Amino acid sequence: MTSDLDPAIAARLKRSPDGLIPAIAQQYDTGEVLMLGWMDDEALHRTLTTGRCTYWSRSRREYWVKGDTSGHVQHVRSVALDCDADTLLVKVDQVGAACHTGARTCFDADVLPLGQ
Amino acid sequence: MTSDLDPAIAARLKRSPDGLIPAIAQQYDTGEVLMLGWMDDEALHRTLTTGRCTYWSRSRREYWVKGDTSGHVQHVRSVALDCDADTLLVKVDQVGAACHTGARTCFDADVLPLGQ
Repeated sequence: MTSDLDPAIAARLKRSPDGLIPAIAQQYDTGEVLMLGWMDDEALHRTLTTGRCTYWSRSRREYWVKGDTSGHVQHVRSVALDCDADTLLVKVDQVGAACHTGARTCFDADVLPLGQ
Repeated sequence: MTSDLDPAIAARLKRSPDGLIPAIAQQYDTGEVLMLGWMDDEALHRTLTTGRCTYWSRSRREYWVKGDTSGHVQHVRSVALDCDADTLLVKVDQVGAACHTGARTCFDADVLPLGQ
């Protein structure tokens, strides 16, 4: 779809074949990695301009403002593009749990065994 | 390709259409997000069993042991799968710079403007 994203930014993005870029959400002060979501140009535009993290849901095929349903809002503190312009790091202030399971982060529950 | 990854783990992974999973590398003590790479089953197996982060290079189409060329090794401290089993968080002890540009992380150089 068309997007209001700044064309100077859009021109630099390297998207996956489905037009998306992975976005890592990190708690700005503690450094916790909270979750990984996906953004297209418009989701990035909304994230940069509204102060609220907006993702593209690959399963529901719709925009998804984090916290609109759960109340677990992500207030945007900064957004950085990586050296290859194919990954975003979004530093946020996470209200409540980032994970839909109620865990603080999506990575809390399932640590894999090393050395096997 | 075939992999020696534990079948119990392999059965749970939700891979992208190209068979890969994004892997976030985070410095284990400072919390810095260093980079995002991609792993297939065998790269994950090698990461879990060798103590060194191994990725799949999408551009070169080969396995890539971080630091083999640069010396900027990532020693694996823990590996966690997220709640959807489609993203990995690898906590590492990064030797030197994580980024090929010489920056500590791949997200240091390009902060996007907010509110435009």
